[in-house]
Amino acid sequence: MYPESLRQLIEELKKLPGVGTKTAERYAMALLDEQPQEVHHLAEVLIFARDHIHDCRICHNLTEQDLCEICADQQRDQGTICVVAQVKDLLAIEKTGMYHGVYHVLGGLITPMKGIMPEDLNMADLYDRVGPNVREVILALNATVEGETTALYLQKQLSEQTTITRLAFGLPIGGYLDYADEFTLIKAFEGRK
Amino acid sequence: MYPESLRQLIEELKKLPGVGTKTAERYAMALLDEQPQEVHHLAEVLIFARDHIHDCRICHNLTEQDLCEICADQQRDQGTICVVAQVKDLLAIEKTGMYHGVYHVLGGLITPMKGIMPEDLNMADLYDRVGPNVREVILALNATVEGETTALYLQKQLSEQTTITRLAFGLPIGGYLDYADEFTLIKAFEGRK
Repeated sequence: MYPESLRQLIEELKKLPGVGTKTAERYAMALLDEQPQEVHHLAEVLIFARDHIHDCRICHNLTEQDLCEICADQQRDQGTICVVAQVKDLLAIEKTGMYHGVYHVLGGLITPMKGIMPEDLNMADLYDRVGPNVREVILALNATVEGETTALYLQKQLSEQTTITRLAFGLPIGGYLDYADEFTLIKAFEGRK
Repeated sequence: MYPESLRQLIEELKKLPGVGTKTAERYAMALLDEQPQEVHHLAEVLIFARDHIHDCRICHNLTEQDLCEICADQQRDQGTICVVAQVKDLLAIEKTGMYHGVYHVLGGLITPMKGIMPEDLNMADLYDRVGPNVREVILALNATVEGETTALYLQKQLSEQTTITRLAFGLPIGGYLDYADEFTLIKAFEGRK
């Protein structure tokens, strides 16, 4: 019923998270309504981003360089490491503007149900980073079962090397960190223990 | 805070209908998680679709050819023309499988508030199509003020040439045609007057 290339485009768009047929059709139609140069630009940006963005060598934040902006910034306190599951969690914290340390992105949370175990996450290089010059490791993980499990696991691994703190349970239980508003996040940071 | 190319990608994705910053960020992150060849494929499909899909010469449906599948199909009844505002409306009707005539896509509805007047729509070539061999023109337009206005306008223009029917008001008032379920659409077709 659709021209073949439109059908393919809709199939591709359905791979985006939370996008079903109806939404993919809507996006595809909107893209066909755009000027050709706009669509070419989108395609170029897409390819450039995918080909040039990779993990920061130190913290696994996203970057086009060897080190991410935060790791490369000499003003940031290298003695405090905030551990997050995903880059989007890091971004949520950065938006508050109240944290001046560095990060470590695990790339997920321990989830045995999905077969995600500690060795599947960026944990080994976190252990390497936690030397005598690191005063505090802040575990800023989702207030979910997986977040709890991961936090307890890391606490056990690292509590002899440094001080481990957790975000205060200002986060609504069962909620996701990157959907918290900035104020809640600030409160959670202040109340960490 | 984002790498530049990621920031650009998010800005591009925000141009999709109904996509805000949060959703665009989510899509961008998902695209960065994909295999590079997957993303290249999406970009290629996008460009190919935009460059090869255009309006059917007769009915303004989307096609990669000169004529769309429906206009080119000799099995379809060329004596009945179903007038719709958008291609997505045509698709909604095709999905029911109960219509065997041809279509005419107006490309919108008369909306004086947005400056969309009859001359901005594909009306001139609809008039040209309605000759003595056309027995019926079905106006399948949204049950909104704009749909009503457009239907009344076309009725006035065409009622001397042929029989004009409208979809029955099985459509919920204020609702959009492409969100109606197939059963409602079939009822609306049957009850047309």
